[in-house]
Amino acid sequence: MDSKKAYQELLSLERTVGLWTSVDAVLGWDESTYLPEAAVGLRGEQKALLASTVHDLVTNPRIGDLLTIVQDSPLATDEEVAANLREFRRAHDRATKLPPSLVHRIALASTRGREAWIEARRRSDYSLFQPHLESLLKLRHEECSALGFCENPYDAMLDHYEPGTRTQGIAGILDALKRELVPLIDRVRGSSQKSSLEALKAHYPVESQYEFGKATVVALGFDLKRGRIDTTTHPFCSGFGPMDVRITTRYDTTFFPSSFYSLLHEAGHGLYEQGLKEEKFGQPMGAACSTAIHESQSRMWENLVGRRHSFWQHFYPKAQKVFSPLQSISGDEFVRAMNHVELSPIRVEADEMTYNLHIILRFELERAMLDGDLHTRDLPGAWNEKCKQIFGFTPPSDALGCLQDVHWSGGDFGYFPTYALGNMYAAQFFEAAERELGNLDAQFSQGQFGQLREWLRRKIHCQGQRYIASELCQKVTGLELSHEALIRHLTKKCDTFYG
Amino acid sequence: MDSKKAYQELLSLERTVGLWTSVDAVLGWDESTYLPEAAVGLRGEQKALLASTVHDLVTNPRIGDLLTIVQDSPLATDEEVAANLREFRRAHDRATKLPPSLVHRIALASTRGREAWIEARRRSDYSLFQPHLESLLKLRHEECSALGFCENPYDAMLDHYEPGTRTQGIAGILDALKRELVPLIDRVRGSSQKSSLEALKAHYPVESQYEFGKATVVALGFDLKRGRIDTTTHPFCSGFGPMDVRITTRYDTTFFPSSFYSLLHEAGHGLYEQGLKEEKFGQPMGAACSTAIHESQSRMWENLVGRRHSFWQHFYPKAQKVFSPLQSISGDEFVRAMNHVELSPIRVEADEMTYNLHIILRFELERAMLDGDLHTRDLPGAWNEKCKQIFGFTPPSDALGCLQDVHWSGGDFGYFPTYALGNMYAAQFFEAAERELGNLDAQFSQGQFGQLREWLRRKIHCQGQRYIASELCQKVTGLELSHEALIRHLTKKCDTFYG
Repeated sequence: MDSKKAYQELLSLERTVGLWTSVDAVLGWDESTYLPEAAVGLRGEQKALLASTVHDLVTNPRIGDLLTIVQDSPLATDEEVAANLREFRRAHDRATKLPPSLVHRIALASTRGREAWIEARRRSDYSLFQPHLESLLKLRHEECSALGFCENPYDAMLDHYEPGTRTQGIAGILDALKRELVPLIDRVRGSSQKSSLEALKAHYPVESQYEFGKATVVALGFDLKRGRIDTTTHPFCSGFGPMDVRITTRYDTTFFPSSFYSLLHEAGHGLYEQGLKEEKFGQPMGAACSTAIHESQSRMWENLVGRRHSFWQHFYPKAQKVFSPLQSISGDEFVRAMNHVELSPIRVEADEMTYNLHIILRFELERAMLDGDLHTRDLPGAWNEKCKQIFGFTPPSDALGCLQDVHWSGGDFGYFPTYALGNMYAAQFFEAAERELGNLDAQFSQGQFGQLREWLRRKIHCQGQRYIASELCQKVTGLELSHEALIRHLTKKCDTFYG
Repeated sequence: MDSKKAYQELLSLERTVGLWTSVDAVLGWDESTYLPEAAVGLRGEQKALLASTVHDLVTNPRIGDLLTIVQDSPLATDEEVAANLREFRRAHDRATKLPPSLVHRIALASTRGREAWIEARRRSDYSLFQPHLESLLKLRHEECSALGFCENPYDAMLDHYEPGTRTQGIAGILDALKRELVPLIDRVRGSSQKSSLEALKAHYPVESQYEFGKATVVALGFDLKRGRIDTTTHPFCSGFGPMDVRITTRYDTTFFPSSFYSLLHEAGHGLYEQGLKEEKFGQPMGAACSTAIHESQSRMWENLVGRRHSFWQHFYPKAQKVFSPLQSISGDEFVRAMNHVELSPIRVEADEMTYNLHIILRFELERAMLDGDLHTRDLPGAWNEKCKQIFGFTPPSDALGCLQDVHWSGGDFGYFPTYALGNMYAAQFFEAAERELGNLDAQFSQGQFGQLREWLRRKIHCQGQRYIASELCQKVTGLELSHEALIRHLTKKCDTFYG
């Protein structure tokens, strides 16, 4: 068979996979935003049907045959074709190893787990969630066995989010980060310069928060003709394609920075999704590089940009107009508060410095659960113990402890480390951007974010999966990923605010 | 093959069809409520893929084989099995006659037509919509030819909504209705007792309208654990299954009855969908009988119940609390206004008496377009002429004329007559209900709607497609459908308010 024709047929089959995946994403978004409570069972069935349809398509032996034809042809020397082939092959091989019945059971269990978790968290009653977590863990174990792994079952999970990484590598870089982070946090805690968030506690109406947040993310470049902002318990971003990218946030009426930064974070993800090439829809060349690279984009806007003095030079006067309680607080005080560092129990509320410790805690626990060293029924105890050890306190309840995050309720083990990797990538990318573009603060203070955004679009978004994450990092920054840029960034912050 | 096993396999295949259809309905709902404007193309592709998937499943020769096995077996003597077989066969035969490429082109053209119509209506510029209408008409013509029909292509369209009806039959009953309706409307216009809606024009905040409307439909029995209320340009009801039924309305801040009655109407549809048997999901026995029977349920709650004196005895004091402008208007004045009769250009704003004339106008025009007697480029002229002839005026713009309704933008020809049939069924059902249950006004005035709702549920909702519409009407009312009950109802109304 002619290799060009084979490649065309392959792209056409994969475009159909892309369309089904996007339909599944619509159902998932609806489930989190607007699904009536009695419809959970029906939605589970719908999603299970979609999952098995996608599985059937991806495992179609025809795809394997077409891949072989193209891989053995001169076409494969083209960098873009090669990237598509690499990732099509990965997805095909991975799916071929998974029995459809397992895929079906995981989809059903995830839907049920999600619902049980919502109720368990609401009541702070871990016992409602534990049987679901146990089932999910067993199912993921089956998945790991089916997929195969080198050393730890956890490797097989990681591979889903960060192709090419291993448990040992992640453990190594997180350890290096921890070694430098802990003394930095100690320095903050010992500093005589204290900041506080107390002064910002006031009443911030939801409607005003929505309007201010929306105007901000639009100014950064999030396009509402190609996206939406909604409200959910757990904020997220879901891209059905570059033309339909939906982000969500939640509102704390007593403290607007909480929803504001969660919106900036999701908008960072959203900018990445909107920056993918539309004409490559359904191809790896039109998909995000990895979960950690995705996270680097959300952290970029949330922390590297959104906590800067120059950012607030532009936005603070606007915020003061919308929120009257801010009128008695100076810009400097406000920026200091936005860079407040404090050990606290909730990950999504954590500052950018201590945040990484939350990840280390979860990484260690989920790895232990997956390796069989920790039973789900012992999770609350283990969580509280490790929290005490790392943070120096135990959480006041399971809702604010081991039930606080959505991830495990969908069986998403191996996801958490990507947050810390994302923080490191973000810092390293930002350093590279400033090396190439010069200092960006003057632009930010004028409300101009286009130069950074377009640089990210060009260097990262448009590249799709041309490179795997580690290669992309080399290409963009000239260096391997390390914890150093992040530590430099955090040290500078420490010097500025806790000098 | 064992006929029981064949039937089980058939039900299982059809349940999958039901699930895909419900996924398609979710996409359709999202398209009308929350889709970002740039995502229309992507949504069209997603829906086209779903349409062709459903088409492939329904036309699967295996279904034909299984149907034959069961139809030739003793199982087929069971009434429920027979009903399922009859409708599975109808759907299978219908779909088998349609080439997949045609199904695909219709799905794409509907999505594009819908979007073009929104813009055309907004600008009141028919030329933006005309090419889309022309394409849709050509596609439906192809469909009619593929399906075959006895006399008019229009028969093939009608059969989609009202199995067993014919163009001539519809024309006959609409003529009979018109003959008695026109003198009745003349009587109203000549009456010395005038009512007016002017006194009700005031400011009604959207939020209050939403809350009052929601409380009302919940009191009627619409279950929000199994449904939602959202806002769209064109109100609709979409049931993904009895556990997930979504209705929408739109808000006129100067006149609350407009959105209120549109919500009651959709809630009537919603009550039908929520009343279907969940365990029969995917089977004709768990599906609504016909479009006109569906409409009878919306008209029941909107007009037969929602405009009664007894209904407002319960709800008017509540409305007065929520809407301060009503405090100076007596309950009697208000009920008179809710029963106001006036010839006006907009169908969805029309009173229940003149409404039927709007349908007759559309029926005659769409029949002419489909029969080739009217070219789409002449539609605005033909509309205005017929409007003048029936209503005595021409609409002020195409937005308020031939562009006012959504139906044709999706190629839905043959749908309009079901509204008038629905009005006739509703009146005939309500008479039967009162024959069996006694006068219901005492209950309504106490806010009790359960007896009527459960009667409808038992007699109609739970029956699914056990009978075709004409048989159902016989079973429930003991009579064939006629215009007489509706005329009796409207005459009584005329006597009361225009004596």
